[in-house]
Amino acid sequence: MNLKCDVQYGKADMGFRLTRVGVTGVRKPIIVKRKGVNNELNRALNCNIDIFVDLPAEQKGSHMSRNVAVLTDVVLESISKPVAGLETVAADMCKRLLVHHEYAEVTGVYITTNYFKPSVTPNGRETYEVYKLIAKATAVRGEGVRKTIGAEVIGMTACPCAQQTVTEIMECGGGTPVISHNQRNICTVTVTTGEDEEIEADTLIDLVEASFSSPTYELLKREDEGMVVINAHKNPKFVEDVVRGVLKRIVESYPDLSDDAEIMVRSESEESIHKHNAFAQREATMGELKEEAE
Amino acid sequence: MNLKCDVQYGKADMGFRLTRVGVTGVRKPIIVKRKGVNNELNRALNCNIDIFVDLPAEQKGSHMSRNVAVLTDVVLESISKPVAGLETVAADMCKRLLVHHEYAEVTGVYITTNYFKPSVTPNGRETYEVYKLIAKATAVRGEGVRKTIGAEVIGMTACPCAQQTVTEIMECGGGTPVISHNQRNICTVTVTTGEDEEIEADTLIDLVEASFSSPTYELLKREDEGMVVINAHKNPKFVEDVVRGVLKRIVESYPDLSDDAEIMVRSESEESIHKHNAFAQREATMGELKEEAE
Amino acid sequence: MNLKCDVQYGKADMGFRLTRVGVTGVRKPIIVKRKGVNNELNRALNCNIDIFVDLPAEQKGSHMSRNVAVLTDVVLESISKPVAGLETVAADMCKRLLVHHEYAEVTGVYITTNYFKPSVTPNGRETYEVYKLIAKATAVRGEGVRKTIGAEVIGMTACPCAQQTVTEIMECGGGTPVISHNQRNICTVTVTTGEDEEIEADTLIDLVEASFSSPTYELLKREDEGMVVINAHKNPKFVEDVVRGVLKRIVESYPDLSDDAEIMVRSESEESIHKHNAFAQREATMGELKEEAE
Amino acid sequence: MNLKCDVQYGKADMGFRLTRVGVTGVRKPIIVKRKGVNNELNRALNCNIDIFVDLPAEQKGSHMSRNVAVLTDVVLESISKPVAGLETVAADMCKRLLVHHEYAEVTGVYITTNYFKPSVTPNGRETYEVYKLIAKATAVRGEGVRKTIGAEVIGMTACPCAQQTVTEIMECGGGTPVISHNQRNICTVTVTTGEDEEIEADTLIDLVEASFSSPTYELLKREDEGMVVINAHKNPKFVEDVVRGVLKRIVESYPDLSDDAEIMVRSESEESIHKHNAFAQREATMGELKEEAE
Repeated sequence: MNLKCDVQYGKADMGFRLTRVGVTGVRKPIIVKRKGVNNELNRALNCNIDIFVDLPAEQKGSHMSRNVAVLTDVVLESISKPVAGLETVAADMCKRLLVHHEYAEVTGVYITTNYFKPSVTPNGRETYEVYKLIAKATAVRGEGVRKTIGAEVIGMTACPCAQQTVTEIMECGGGTPVISHNQRNICTVTVTTGEDEEIEADTLIDLVEASFSSPTYELLKREDEGMVVINAHKNPKFVEDVVRGVLKRIVESYPDLSDDAEIMVRSESEESIHKHNAFAQREATMGELKEEAE
Repeated sequence: MNLKCDVQYGKADMGFRLTRVGVTGVRKPIIVKRKGVNNELNRALNCNIDIFVDLPAEQKGSHMSRNVAVLTDVVLESISKPVAGLETVAADMCKRLLVHHEYAEVTGVYITTNYFKPSVTPNGRETYEVYKLIAKATAVRGEGVRKTIGAEVIGMTACPCAQQTVTEIMECGGGTPVISHNQRNICTVTVTTGEDEEIEADTLIDLVEASFSSPTYELLKREDEGMVVINAHKNPKFVEDVVRGVLKRIVESYPDLSDDAEIMVRSESEESIHKHNAFAQREATMGELKEEAE
Repeated sequence: MNLKCDVQYGKADMGFRLTRVGVTGVRKPIIVKRKGVNNELNRALNCNIDIFVDLPAEQKGSHMSRNVAVLTDVVLESISKPVAGLETVAADMCKRLLVHHEYAEVTGVYITTNYFKPSVTPNGRETYEVYKLIAKATAVRGEGVRKTIGAEVIGMTACPCAQQTVTEIMECGGGTPVISHNQRNICTVTVTTGEDEEIEADTLIDLVEASFSSPTYELLKREDEGMVVINAHKNPKFVEDVVRGVLKRIVESYPDLSDDAEIMVRSESEESIHKHNAFAQREATMGELKEEAE
Repeated sequence: MNLKCDVQYGKADMGFRLTRVGVTGVRKPIIVKRKGVNNELNRALNCNIDIFVDLPAEQKGSHMSRNVAVLTDVVLESISKPVAGLETVAADMCKRLLVHHEYAEVTGVYITTNYFKPSVTPNGRETYEVYKLIAKATAVRGEGVRKTIGAEVIGMTACPCAQQTVTEIMECGGGTPVISHNQRNICTVTVTTGEDEEIEADTLIDLVEASFSSPTYELLKREDEGMVVINAHKNPKFVEDVVRGVLKRIVESYPDLSDDAEIMVRSESEESIHKHNAFAQREATMGELKEEAE
């Protein structure tokens, strides 16, 4: 049967442009190239994907099924040719979406997934930690693609202020670290660049873990656990310190990154002494950060 | 005891400004003025509140507890003098935060809450429906306050495209509405204005409900249920149509709203024929919308 | 119009009894009697409600709208006559459901809500803390009603094991408490009894808060914060200790509670040193607990 | 360093047995054997895992790190020897936990993961759909292991009652299906058996999809979409019908399953005409179901 009509192409009753039209929450595995050990465990990332294009005022509907068709092509191709990174997949999809939605001026893709990476505890025990990856891209017809790679990392912060207050109240101090409240901290970092600049998600994860009071680990035997606690209390951090630590390490690690690269860092602390969270956040261009760091 | 030191005022090790520092997920009841029946049921809104200020590069930490102290004052004052609206509370808090954080240039408050409002089914049965309210404000020192009021409304959409496809496949049509897929749709609208302009959340909810294929109801006896289904199928809507319908009604309902008012409308459809959602969104100023509507 | 047919009463094609049929996620405010200060802030609880009845094998469908009709009656009645407790509402609803679903043998209601309660910090500052209330009831035709009241309470635990490990590693000890990891802990307690026994949710919340390393507070000035940290480290607790502490306090506080009362206590710790949680749980009758406590 | 003490083995202050002590929310990839096409895409399942053992009254703490150590062994072994199914992994872990927790009488493991499976639309288009797998096991010392396999499947239901009501109101009927409300339905089925009985998750998914008004698909071109809508309206189903349909298909598909196998089926419908959900559920042994089916 040849279904001839196409409601979506009909004239819209009401002449408003739409900024974004598309699908959210599509689940798909995408196969990525991985280096090193445990390759098998982490090749096919279980992704959650949002896809959108803009829609001109004079068109009634967007062709939603084309978004999923483009995604399906990319997934099947990744079987024979694993992708280099999720932000590359997102950028590639954005360009294909411009072809398939001939009326669109802007296209966008947003991908998140769990991700596992080998790590080592303070006492040298090998573990395998979980992170969340964030990959995005946006294409503007005639202007090229911007892509984003990022990670959400769980770590630990011990509070410097409570530590000082306890020192004063108890008149303690000296050789051993003083007690404080400590808690789970979730730090998210994203870096947005042009298509030709490369940022490794693994590097971003390392920068974030170095900025906590201590990284955390799934498997800690007793001495490991003791060392994590000692390290964290020798290295107390506010949420503000975590964000600034990541910013500093980004400036130091990427001296050649374009000034127009956009950086977002957010640290949220699930305060052990409160029922609510504390957070700090910075959005800036690389140019601004370089200037402030001088 | 007079605890003299104050770690937060210490010099930051790393000279980066922070865009936002504060607390998230604070829960508090706030008492609002309500008109009409069932006043008792809905006076104290159970709110979820985020509060932030910016932080200059040279200061180590923000004073988090001042955020909660300002909130606590506002809550206690609402007992004797119920507030006019949550966006007014947010704006008021932003101004107080500028006083209590003397180093801050920008302050912000974000409030969400469930909210109940009387409604009437197609057959005239009175019901009491649940909505989510969204209220925000931002203050910039020396520049005044912008405030946002909005609502998240659940309704129903029936798909125009599937209805036409079925008509062609079955060669049906004529007097009775043709089958289609229909589903729960969540439409969110927010309007951001200066401090002196007033938008009623109840009006926004009404505009959104008029833009669905049909509003939905908690309690439907059989005839009511039949009429909701018939109305929805006589009035099929894409997510795009829902957004444009709300935009059109906003332009018509607020002819005197400033051109710099910012409007956001988003419709997300939990597609019955897919495991993922469809969505459409527009962000625009009132000036842009007025121009497009001509 | 008189819609005569009723599909639900039709004969089921397939002869299986159903254990539970009903609605989930209905939102309604219910007005409860409150004692003491800040009454205004917390009278109308914003409830999430699930309702179900069983269904005999020979009947095709349950009458879902009757569940919401019974709930609506209860809500409206609470305006003129505030209810004594949510578990009383649930029990009342279960009995009405048996009348309205004449074919049902079992009826059940499950209510949760946020709830605010005055509290006092270690230094005497008044605060207002948030808790989650849990209320349930089940009725069996000809056998009466069982009702459940409970609370989900957020507090803080400091780990005894890490504290001892650090003591050994650093050869510290003596006057001041030794560092450990500490974190947010969520402890849930429920007590199920016959209709004539009364348990106050406020009492359960107090028992749980006394069983943490320390309660937590929304608003802590510096000395308060220091005292919370010191108290927690003088009082280290495993998740196991929290559960056993609550069980012990229940046995001590309710010497006259029936042996067939059912107790559930669960403590879940959002470990600061891990990305995953630790938990401990006990389900027992009051009779079993009394015997073990001897 | 030889850390000699072990707080966990200390005598508990309060003599209560604990039903369950362990960890929740551990994330790990586990490699499973897969048959057929697209093998690469779905080998390493991204699992969320809870692990627990009971704890006798006289022991202060459980050895939490042993739970994660057992899991880590199983994950690493799956690289060289992919596991047959997640419920087999869970059963294997339960037996190892009895060895590592020599004081435990009961051990339990609960695993969930997203899972992708090829499917075909009404018009023959190949798609790849997402499901949630549920795997559990419990071991009792000296009594053996019970294991559970199940799936959470998203489909579509069209309401038979609204369809009949509309027929009466509009006096329609005849050749073409009449309109109704339809919506996303989430149906969960689990089967618990002894260690020697085998149930395929793929079979359970097929049984559930056959019990909806229609399965749903990620990628539908226009004719496919029309056929899904037509099929759903020719096949209207209450949540009760979905549960009974799955029960009937289980009885027919597993004539040799032990009478003591435990079956749970739950269908939850995200009603398009309401803001709340409808649900139906049955828990029964295979013996009870066989008897009722006669």
